[in-house]
This record gives sequence, structure tokens and C-alpha cells, in this order.
Amino acid sequence: MRIARFSVREGSAAGSVSFGVVEGDAAQPESLVLHAMAGHPFGTPQLTGESHRWDQVRLLTPMLPSKIVAVGRNYAAHAAELGHEVPEVPLTFFKPSTSVIGPTEAIAYPPFSGDVQHEAELAVVIGRMCREVPVDRVSEVVFGYTCGNDVTARDVQQREGQWARAKGFDTACPLGPWIETELDPADLAITCTVNGELRQTGRTSLMLRGIPELVAHISEAMTLLPGDVILTGTPAGVGPLNVGDEVAVSIEGIGTLTNKVIKRG
Amino acid sequence: MRIARFSVREGSAAGSVSFGVVEGDAAQPESLVLHAMAGHPFGTPQLTGESHRWDQVRLLTPMLPSKIVAVGRNYAAHAAELGHEVPEVPLTFFKPSTSVIGPTEAIAYPPFSGDVQHEAELAVVIGRMCREVPVDRVSEVVFGYTCGNDVTARDVQQREGQWARAKGFDTACPLGPWIETELDPADLAITCTVNGELRQTGRTSLMLRGIPELVAHISEAMTLLPGDVILTGTPAGVGPLNVGDEVAVSIEGIGTLTNKVIKRG
Repeated sequence: MRIARFSVREGSAAGSVSFGVVEGDAAQPESLVLHAMAGHPFGTPQLTGESHRWDQVRLLTPMLPSKIVAVGRNYAAHAAELGHEVPEVPLTFFKPSTSVIGPTEAIAYPPFSGDVQHEAELAVVIGRMCREVPVDRVSEVVFGYTCGNDVTARDVQQREGQWARAKGFDTACPLGPWIETELDPADLAITCTVNGELRQTGRTSLMLRGIPELVAHISEAMTLLPGDVILTGTPAGVGPLNVGDEVAVSIEGIGTLTNKVIKRG
Repeated sequence: MRIARFSVREGSAAGSVSFGVVEGDAAQPESLVLHAMAGHPFGTPQLTGESHRWDQVRLLTPMLPSKIVAVGRNYAAHAAELGHEVPEVPLTFFKPSTSVIGPTEAIAYPPFSGDVQHEAELAVVIGRMCREVPVDRVSEVVFGYTCGNDVTARDVQQREGQWARAKGFDTACPLGPWIETELDPADLAITCTVNGELRQTGRTSLMLRGIPELVAHISEAMTLLPGDVILTGTPAGVGPLNVGDEVAVSIEGIGTLTNKVIKRG
């Protein structure tokens, strides 16, 4: 099932925000229909009976996570391209809720950086409050998967020892276009294009630590809440974004998350 | 004005949670009275007319921040005691909302660390949504000040390059006992005791970067929301906590935040 979050563009429900089930062929957006849901999608979702055509809605970030826990250098080829060793333990850092944008919003290039880069990543959405999840029970707490872009001010990251500003600025966490709840994440193709040109390519099977190990490791320390997001690291090929660019993260079995890059207003 | 958040212990309102204004002498807790507030304390707070004696309430964390942005090595003597240089730019990192506890809750010693330490800090509570706040307007976005403890699993911090687990585990962010909204934070004494024994002592005037500079620096990157908290760094004297300890952070003009240390259940 594909779960999106959207606002209605026009009519008597204009401006209302709902979760919904996406039906149709993602390769033909005009075929897509959104079936609105009452309340949140966790547990047993209830459809309201209202449906909307694709051109009648605006997609929002599929989740408003209380926290995003991201993992650095989880693909050997990416660690190597930045001149780093593979970390002995997973490198975990937070991106704040204020950095999240959806698939129809723009990455706003922040004035304090001159080197903002894309990092295409598989995003895991948590479905149940949990802590100290054993590796073999991680699938029970995962709600689904979406595309993420761990947008990074590389110059700031290199200058500052901890990455709150470099990876936590407003718009640095695009998520979407929707959450796929029925997917085996073990070996999916991930690509990132900028203005249609291929920049990053990898497969989730190349993660140094897989999703069960990452969720177990993170939840050993902290409670994860429904909607929280784990970003699982980026494959090789990271590179600069410029104002005017369009960056697209595609993950096999999920879809494509596209964001323009604009100057911060 | 001192703003607390509390739940009522007994009677018809038992279990209800409110913000409230604290009246009385903090040195004589039995003299304290809490005047309940309708809704949140930002803007023009409205009292409900209900008041509670100190022994009728349980103090909760005075804020439920969407994010906590903390600053590392902001006192030269603390940087030196851990063998670090003073950073050229402020070292900023996040603690998640799930790490926050109040003044009557316990720090739960996490099983993945063998060296959990206290770090007494002045906590700045943001009162208005803001971004790119100029240094000379920071006072306009500050709601008030409280005591914070940037509890840190030192061994995990040293082992993992980024500090999400080391400083973000559940209960790693005690805040309280209340927010003092009328206070000049420029030169306040900060102390930390463990079981009554003095461990940390410093003055906010020894911060390498003051609050205006820190809030300007952080908000250059990201939007701060009402209730968000900035932890401003710890003075020298950090040291271990053990199960059974009672750790108390006192800040001149605010009060004392006391937490027991228990084994994680």
C-alpha cells in the first residue's frame, strides 16, 4: 500500500490536509487517485470514502516525524569518496523536524553555505513506539519506506565538528513522495539525478549495516515514535546542488522524490 | 515570572496537566503556590483562577521542546579537561524530544554505556518562531531560562563520531524546575552537585560564545519554534554518575534541578 499525505487544492475541501491511499500507476501520474483516510495511517486505517484525482491535490511530506535519525558512511564507496574510513560503529546524527519538506516543496539554498550537496537515501518510517528492538523483530516496528534526501552543506560539515547546522538547516530533509508499506528493502536500486543527469547510483544491498541492525542500534538508546524516520546512508556519487537545479531521488519499488533548489527567500 | 508545568496529584483534577505561575520562596518549597494557566504560556498568559499548593502537584519538564540544540565546548576549562581545543566555530548538536525529563523524573542509566556523566548547563527557552535572528535582537525571541543537564554517555561519545546515541538516549535531557522569564543571563553562577558534593562550578560569563551569538548562529541555519531549547555548554568538573546518585544543577536566579539516577527498567 502507498500512503501519501496531501492537501486538497480546490473545492469545498480546499486546504484540508489528510493521509490517503494512492492507487494507480506511478509512471502515469494522471492515472493516480488518492483515497482519503480519517486520522493517521497507523494501526487499522479507515478510509473516509472521499477520493481525489492527482491534479486536485498537492502532495506533502508523507510524515511529520518527531525526529529523524540519520546514519553516516553506511556505504563503503561513499565513505571512500569523501576520504573516510568505514566507521567501526554506525555514525548516527539527528535532523530536526523543522528540516523536513515534501515532494512539492523546494530546497532553499542557505546563505551560510557555498557547497550544498544531495545525498539520496532509503528512509525507513517507524510505525510503533518502541525501544531496544531486537534485530529479528525490527520488521514489526517498521511502517514502510520512502525516499529521502539527506541534503548537506558540505563546507559547513567539514568546518564544524558536529553536524546540526550542516545537515539540519530548514529544507535539508526532503521526504516522499509516499510511504510504501509492502516492500522488501534488502536489495533495491537507489539513484539520484540532477537536472536529469545521473549522479548517484547504488543498491540497498551495499549498506554496511542493514535496516535491522540500524534500528536495533538506534533504539538501544532511544524510544522511536510512530512517524519517526531513519535515514540509512547514501551511496557514492554525492555532489553539488545549485539554485535552479531539480534533484530527483528514485528508489525501486517506491517512486521518485523530486525537489527544485531555490534561493532562500 | 517563574513558569512551571505540572500535573495535579489528587482531587477532582487529578492527572490534569497545566502550565502555571510559581509564587513563593524557592528556598522554602512548602511556601510555593502554583497558579494554573489556560493553554500555553507564550504571548499573554491567562490564569484560570485555580491555585495549587506545592505538595498537591508534581512538577513536569517546563517545556516539551520540538528540538533541543546543544553547544559543545563553550567553556574553555571544560574543553581543556576533556583534552580538546576550543572549537573555532560553535559545535552544535541535537538532543531529541524523547530525551527530555522533568525535575521529578529519574535519569535511567542506559545499558549500552559504562560511563554516564553530568553536564550542568544554562538552558535558553525560545518564545517565538524565528530564523536568522540578528545578535542584537536575540532577547526578543527568548522566553526565559531554566536549568539543564546535558547527560552524556562519555564512553559512547568517544567511540562514535557523532553524538546522537551518546547524548540522545532516553532521559539524557533533564530540564527544570521552571522557566524564569525575568533574568539577565550574563553572569550567573552554575553549580552541579552529586549526592550533595560539589562537582561543577562556573559562571555564565565564562561562556566562549554568549547567548546572543549562539542563538544567531543556530537560527542562521534553522527555524526555532516556541518551546525549543538551546543548551549553552557546561563548565569544568564533569564526572561520572552512578545508579543511586542524586544529581542537582543549580543556577543563580533560577533554582535547582534535581534528578535521581536509576537503572533503566
